[in-house]
Amino acid sequence: MTTSLDFYFDFSSPYGYLASEWIDVLAEKYGRAVVWRPVLLGILFKSTGSAPLAQIPLKGAYSLHDFARSARYLGVDYRQPTDFPIATHHAARAFYWLADRDTSLARKFARACYRAYFVEDRNISTPQVLHDLADALAVDPAQLSDAVNAPAYRERLKSETDLAMQRGVFGSPYFIVDGEPFWGVDRLPQLEKWLSEGGF
Amino acid sequence: MTTSLDFYFDFSSPYGYLASEWIDVLAEKYGRAVVWRPVLLGILFKSTGSAPLAQIPLKGAYSLHDFARSARYLGVDYRQPTDFPIATHHAARAFYWLADRDTSLARKFARACYRAYFVEDRNISTPQVLHDLADALAVDPAQLSDAVNAPAYRERLKSETDLAMQRGVFGSPYFIVDGEPFWGVDRLPQLEKWLSEGGF
Repeated sequence: MTTSLDFYFDFSSPYGYLASEWIDVLAEKYGRAVVWRPVLLGILFKSTGSAPLAQIPLKGAYSLHDFARSARYLGVDYRQPTDFPIATHHAARAFYWLADRDTSLARKFARACYRAYFVEDRNISTPQVLHDLADALAVDPAQLSDAVNAPAYRERLKSETDLAMQRGVFGSPYFIVDGEPFWGVDRLPQLEKWLSEGGF
Repeated sequence: MTTSLDFYFDFSSPYGYLASEWIDVLAEKYGRAVVWRPVLLGILFKSTGSAPLAQIPLKGAYSLHDFARSARYLGVDYRQPTDFPIATHHAARAFYWLADRDTSLARKFARACYRAYFVEDRNISTPQVLHDLADALAVDPAQLSDAVNAPAYRERLKSETDLAMQRGVFGSPYFIVDGEPFWGVDRLPQLEKWLSEGGF
C-alpha cells in the first residue's frame, strides 16, 4: 500500500502554480494520490525570517525572470500578474470549504484560481473574481462568500498552516511523501526518482 | 562564435561543489569554455540580506538533507563537512594566483579543494590543508602561502566579488552565459536547454 503525497502551496506562489500543473500527472504515473493543501506563505515565512522573493534585492529581479523561463521550460502558460504578491486567505478558505464537500471540485477550483491569476492576470484576492470563478464551476457564489468569511474556515486555514509549519514546510511548493520532504518545483525530477524507485 | 560561460561559486557551497562536478562536461558538450570564478558568498549575501542556508530555522535542516540527496541524484560523492560553513578567502586567492599562471592547473586545484572539503572532510580554510593540496599538484606550498597573504590577491578577490555583485550574482553556484543568468545546481537542466537551443 502506498501513502498519498501532500502538496503544499500558496495561491500567490508562481513556483506553486507551475508545480500544480504537473504534480497530478506525475503522481498518477506512480499510483499516488495527491492531497492539495493551500497554506499562507506569509505565516510560514515568519518561521524562517524570509520575505517574498520579488521584494529581495537582486534575487527579486532574477526571480521575475526565472518564473517566466521556468514556465517555458515546463511548458506551462505564464503571465506575471500585475498585482503581485497578493493576499490568498480568501481563496484558500474557499478551497477548504469546497474540499469538505467535494475534493475533485476543490481541485478544479484551485486550478481555476491559479490560471486566473497566473495566466489571465485576474486578481484572485478580490471577492468579484472569486465569485466569478465559483459561478463558472456551478458553485453558489453567495455560499462561497459566506464560507470565506466564516470563523470555521478562518480557523481551518490557520490550523492547516500551523500543521504545515510543524511538519517543516517553509516554502511553496513543498511536497511530503513517505515522510520525505521536497521543496520547490525544481525538485520534481528528484520527486519522480523517489516515486519511481521507492526512495533513493 | 560562442561566448564562454561564467561559473561563479564559493568553495564552502555544497551546491557549488555539486555543480563543479558537472559544469565542464555540460559546457564541453555544446562547445563552450567555462571560466571558473570563486567569490565570497558572505559578501554577496550582504546585498540580499541572506544568511548561510544551514543557519536558517527549518530551511537549515532541510538543506542538510537536500545536499546529500541532490548529490545522490547527480551521482556525485558527498559527505557533510564537520566544520561548515568555513572561510574560503585563502582557497579563492590561491585559485586566482594559480589562474594567472595556468588556468588548467587552477581548475585542478579548485576541484581538489572541493573534493578535499566535501568528500574527505578536510578543512580547506586551514593553511596545512591548502599546503598539502598544493604539494599534491606540484605547486610550491611556500609560494602559494605568500600569494594567499599578498595584498595583490586580497585585492583581486575583492574585485572579483565586487564584479560578481555588479553582475547580479547573489548565490552559489551562479552561471552567466550569453548574458543569461542561472542560479543553483538545479538550473543545470535549463542551462543545458539554453546551450542546446541557443536560448529558449
